[in-house]
Amino acid sequence: MSLTNRQILLDNRPTGEPSVANFKLVETPVSALADGEVLVRNHYLSLDPYMRGRMNDSKSYAQPQPLGEVMIGGTVGEVVESRNSHFKAGDKVVGMGGWQEYQRVDANQRGVLQKVDTTHIPLSAYLGAVGMPGVTGWYGLVKIITPKAGETVVVSAASGAVGGAVGQLAKARGCRVVGIAGGPDKCGQVVSELGFDACIDYKAHPDLKSLSRALKEACPDGIDGYFENVGGMILDAVMLRCNAFSRIAFCGMISGYNGDPIPMTNPSLILVNRMKLEGFIVSEHMGVWPEALKELGALVATGQLKYRETVAEGIASAPEAFLGLLKGKNFGKQLVKLV
Amino acid sequence: MSLTNRQILLDNRPTGEPSVANFKLVETPVSALADGEVLVRNHYLSLDPYMRGRMNDSKSYAQPQPLGEVMIGGTVGEVVESRNSHFKAGDKVVGMGGWQEYQRVDANQRGVLQKVDTTHIPLSAYLGAVGMPGVTGWYGLVKIITPKAGETVVVSAASGAVGGAVGQLAKARGCRVVGIAGGPDKCGQVVSELGFDACIDYKAHPDLKSLSRALKEACPDGIDGYFENVGGMILDAVMLRCNAFSRIAFCGMISGYNGDPIPMTNPSLILVNRMKLEGFIVSEHMGVWPEALKELGALVATGQLKYRETVAEGIASAPEAFLGLLKGKNFGKQLVKLV
Repeated sequence: MSLTNRQILLDNRPTGEPSVANFKLVETPVSALADGEVLVRNHYLSLDPYMRGRMNDSKSYAQPQPLGEVMIGGTVGEVVESRNSHFKAGDKVVGMGGWQEYQRVDANQRGVLQKVDTTHIPLSAYLGAVGMPGVTGWYGLVKIITPKAGETVVVSAASGAVGGAVGQLAKARGCRVVGIAGGPDKCGQVVSELGFDACIDYKAHPDLKSLSRALKEACPDGIDGYFENVGGMILDAVMLRCNAFSRIAFCGMISGYNGDPIPMTNPSLILVNRMKLEGFIVSEHMGVWPEALKELGALVATGQLKYRETVAEGIASAPEAFLGLLKGKNFGKQLVKLV
Repeated sequence: MSLTNRQILLDNRPTGEPSVANFKLVETPVSALADGEVLVRNHYLSLDPYMRGRMNDSKSYAQPQPLGEVMIGGTVGEVVESRNSHFKAGDKVVGMGGWQEYQRVDANQRGVLQKVDTTHIPLSAYLGAVGMPGVTGWYGLVKIITPKAGETVVVSAASGAVGGAVGQLAKARGCRVVGIAGGPDKCGQVVSELGFDACIDYKAHPDLKSLSRALKEACPDGIDGYFENVGGMILDAVMLRCNAFSRIAFCGMISGYNGDPIPMTNPSLILVNRMKLEGFIVSEHMGVWPEALKELGALVATGQLKYRETVAEGIASAPEAFLGLLKGKNFGKQLVKLV
């Protein structure tokens, strides 16, 4: 079997806004497996906002993505050849296959490849609601925001894979849930499909005063928990509406990825309202994954947790789809379909 | 017995920096006690930074100090007359007597007046190291920063009543402790008297770059915990030096009391370093006071917890002493001695 693997490499680092010129498509032959290895054909690539941070060569929580190497990222796929007794051809698996059509994996390393059951849960969901984004939402909500029934929880990037999970998990816990998203289409679907109580279109509120008024209307009892995906003016507006003892889970601050840091206007609110703000990365809390995935998997299998996918076709479309994700062009989980 | 009580009222609210003209000294006769009441002669008034916030008529965690009424504040003193079976003349007590020489208290209300033992602990210490400031430091350190031996803890306003307690409690837990204070005298004493490992004179570092360099030198392993009393540029500099999983306890942000909020320059560090920031007010955590006071009292009684006092004389000196406190003119606990 002589297979050609098409891969996307990080060719050079962005200065400011990234572009397709930062990436490079290459073709390489797939070489024969060594003992213990597995060959996986990737069916879907996951595109996620965290990848933007790794494109920079600066100190962050993650190692920078190395230049000239395959872009790192989550994948689901099917085993096509195995020299490892734990896997056989036909197994559906989730792993970190990167932006490429095939991956050769030393499957003896613990946790690099997980078999998944697609009887009740579609394969692609393991990259979204029943994968990293779902667990991210679960952790920030359950472990940091710790919502109580009757409280108000606000979620930015509400139509994204993480935000959608946060809101529906909070609804299931008896909260009033208010999303923030870009554009009337997304906001409408966040309410009608995902079941949020309200959703604010931040594009319709370009200044702090207008956004604050919208938050006041949508959150008449103030805000008790906020799941932060964006930063900047939205964070400022939410903080002004936060109640005493409110909690903010910092999951992403996409608005500051491309340049200078965006300040928090009034940090003294942390004291005045005795707030708790906590940043987290879900990969550092592997201990909670089984509990989170159990709840998320059950909700998806029974249709109680809704999610949307935006699917680009073919490996060559990955860079453009990724740039679209950073600009909020996707609705729900952004995937690249390879098979 | 015909006693005259001299009292300091809040006469009008400051616009920007407060002045002595905001206060008014009045004399009122002390009327006869009703059943259940106690008359206390205040020996010391406590002056504390939180009082500045209450002088404003804005939303904060505390009710604004009402105009035309006695300034609220902690006091220690001696019962001079009692119509309550739980107190007798000669009892030493701590309470919230306010800025006045005498207080009439309905001592049947729970917790308004506490008898204290001055055998091993001086009466004034119940307003400082063994009182609200000590418990404030204890709570922020033990419950929010949760220091581990070997970690580095930074404390701003290190020569104050709260900061001094924080640093010594952290030293007792095996931490490297670095203070920040204003001027070489205070810094020298923070190290030589209070036993901090180092103390940075923020007045010698007027810009972020210089302060950052000083922090880097004093905290070669980064910063794991920060007890925040001031805000502004010091907070920015500390955050730049904070380690992954560091914790900041927000106790005061004195730098923002007189005007516009001072922004936090780089909130994305909360995410990048998975930090936890938490504001608190010690009066909302009465449950921990017995545990905290037990440790603080034992350390003071055995001379292991050092503290300084700056003492103004006579009720009329209170406004000026308070303004000095806000400008950092005190060393350690600022008191007004009345007897």
